[in-house]
Order: sequence, then C-alpha cells, then structure tokens
Amino acid sequence: MKMIMAVIQDKDSNRLMNALVEHNFRATKLASTGGFLKSGNTTFMIGTEDVRVQKALDIIKDNCQHRQQLVAPVSPMGGNADSYVPYPVEVEVGGATVFVLPIEHFHQF
Amino acid sequence: MKMIMAVIQDKDSNRLMNALVEHNFRATKLASTGGFLKSGNTTFMIGTEDVRVQKALDIIKDNCQHRQQLVAPVSPMGGNADSYVPYPVEVEVGGATVFVLPIEHFHQF
Amino acid sequence: MKMIMAVIQDKDSNRLMNALVEHNFRATKLASTGGFLKSGNTTFMIGTEDVRVQKALDIIKDNCQHRQQLVAPVSPMGGNADSYVPYPVEVEVGGATVFVLPIEHFHQF
Ligand code: NI
Ligand code: NI
Ligand code: NI
Repeated sequence: MKMIMAVIQDKDSNRLMNALVEHNFRATKLASTGGFLKSGNTTFMIGTEDVRVQKALDIIKDNCQHRQQLVAPVSPMGGNADSYVPYPVEVEVGGATVFVLPIEHFHQF
Repeated sequence: MKMIMAVIQDKDSNRLMNALVEHNFRATKLASTGGFLKSGNTTFMIGTEDVRVQKALDIIKDNCQHRQQLVAPVSPMGGNADSYVPYPVEVEVGGATVFVLPIEHFHQF
Repeated sequence: MKMIMAVIQDKDSNRLMNALVEHNFRATKLASTGGFLKSGNTTFMIGTEDVRVQKALDIIKDNCQHRQQLVAPVSPMGGNADSYVPYPVEVEVGGATVFVLPIEHFHQF
C-alpha cells in the first residue's frame, strides 16, 4: 500500500475526484491553502495498492497538468476602449505536486 | 515513531478525540471532505511510539467501527400518516480508513 | 526527498511561511484544529530534498519555538481598578510538533 498526497488547484478538484472514482480509487480531500501552487489549492490523500500507484499518477497528470489556457477577453464595462484587447489571452493553470509515501499498515474498520 | 492517519465520520470525531486524550495520545484534526467515507469526515493525525500503535488502532476501532444504528422514527409534522413507519429503522454509521506511516524523525520545539 | 509535517500555532503561521519562502522552501498549509497544541493550529506540509531537512527544521524552530511572551496589561474599561495589574504578564506561546516522513517518489506535473 502507498499513500499519495497530491496538492492541486481548486479548479481541477472536481474533475480529478470524478476521474479517480471512475477508476475505483478512493480519495479524501484536505482543505489547504497557498504554498506549492499559487492560488487556492486542495490536497488529495489517496490510499492505493502498489500496483495501482502509476495509474493514479496518470490520472492526476491527465486532469491537473500544468497547461496554458485560452481565456476569452471580457468586453470592458463602460471602460476605455483603448485598453480592450479583442482576442483570447493565454493564462497558466493547473499543475500538481505529488508525494508517494510508504504505508506500513492499512486498516479498515 | 509512527504517524497514524485515520479518516473517520464527523459524528464519531468528538468521541474519538476524548478517548485518545484519555489514553494520553495526542492528535490533530485535519478538515477533510468526501472520499473514503460517504458523508462529512475528519482526518485524525496521531503521532505515537511504535509500541502504542496497536492501542491507538484499538481505540479507533472501538469508537468508529462501521455499525448498524437504530434510529427512532420521527413523527410526521402535519404529514401524511400513511407514510409514517412507527418503528425504529437501521442506518449504517461509522467506519474508519486508517493508514500507519513510518516516521524518520520526530521533533518537538 | 522528505515530507515534513509541522503542527504549529496559528499566530506563528504567517511568520513561518515567510521564512520558508525566503529560504526557497515550498509549503502547503492544511487547516487543522486541536490536539498537539492547545489553541488554533495550522499544519505545514513541506516537501524537500534530504540535505535541506535540517535547514527546514531550523527555520521551524526559530519561528515557532515554545516560549514565554510578555503581554502588556490592558487597562480595565470602566472596570474595577482593584483588579488592574499595572505590569506585563508572561504567557506561553508557540511550540511545534514536527514529523519527518520518507517519500518514495516525488512528481511535479
Ligand atoms: Ni497493522
Ligand atoms: Ni531529526
Ligand atoms: Ni514515481
């Protein structure tokens, strides 16, 4: 058994949980702030058998990878038309910091 | 030294903390949601000497074990008497998912 | 790689985070309550290379050590002048409970 602690962005949280459940992983979310990632984040605690660690890592990577995202510009509300950029801009989102820890015992009561 | 991470139901949280303190264990509660257990849950982080791990597990088992509970029916408020079941019903409560992790160093400042 | 879990008092939290960032450590804060320390506490989760563990512990010790603090007396508001003690009193603050855990894998996506 291993414990996977994954710090991810809040915005990837629901998608990751759904993907984990779909692949029969069980995860608990810990409320967390700051640190490894800039904005609001969530820490997933996932317990799994050794042979399934790589699959869990793949799911985290697929759903939380650091990536560029195109954001459609918002038209300025009564604003200065000079500062309005009428094309999508790229922002950086996502990312995950993942620790795999050894477990000596696992119990379910 | 070992670190015990125990995900338990919120409703067992106070009882478990009292039982741990009574047996001289020290625990920190981490706010957690979803995952290993269906409804609201709490993650206990307990640091203890190796020889006391089994005692801590016993306390967790005694206070959080998955069990059936009889719930007295609530009389319907101005409701339809047809749907009122005048005997207690069984619901499943409790349960704990417990990880025992090795600790390399323990420090108290 | 090691994972350092440090339970500290809320009031030392900002100072510790600043000191960690200043020394290029990355930490995530987990919301936590009760247990190892009496009042409100925060759990820092710090991932770091083995050779930097001692530096992280030094920073935690420097910023969170259990200590006496002089608190200036507050003049009683329309109160009984008899109970007013016109000199600072010592209160105990700080303290940290720190676990260093082994990490088998560390990934950044
Ligand atoms: Ni065991
Ligand atoms: Ni040490
Ligand atoms: Ni790996």
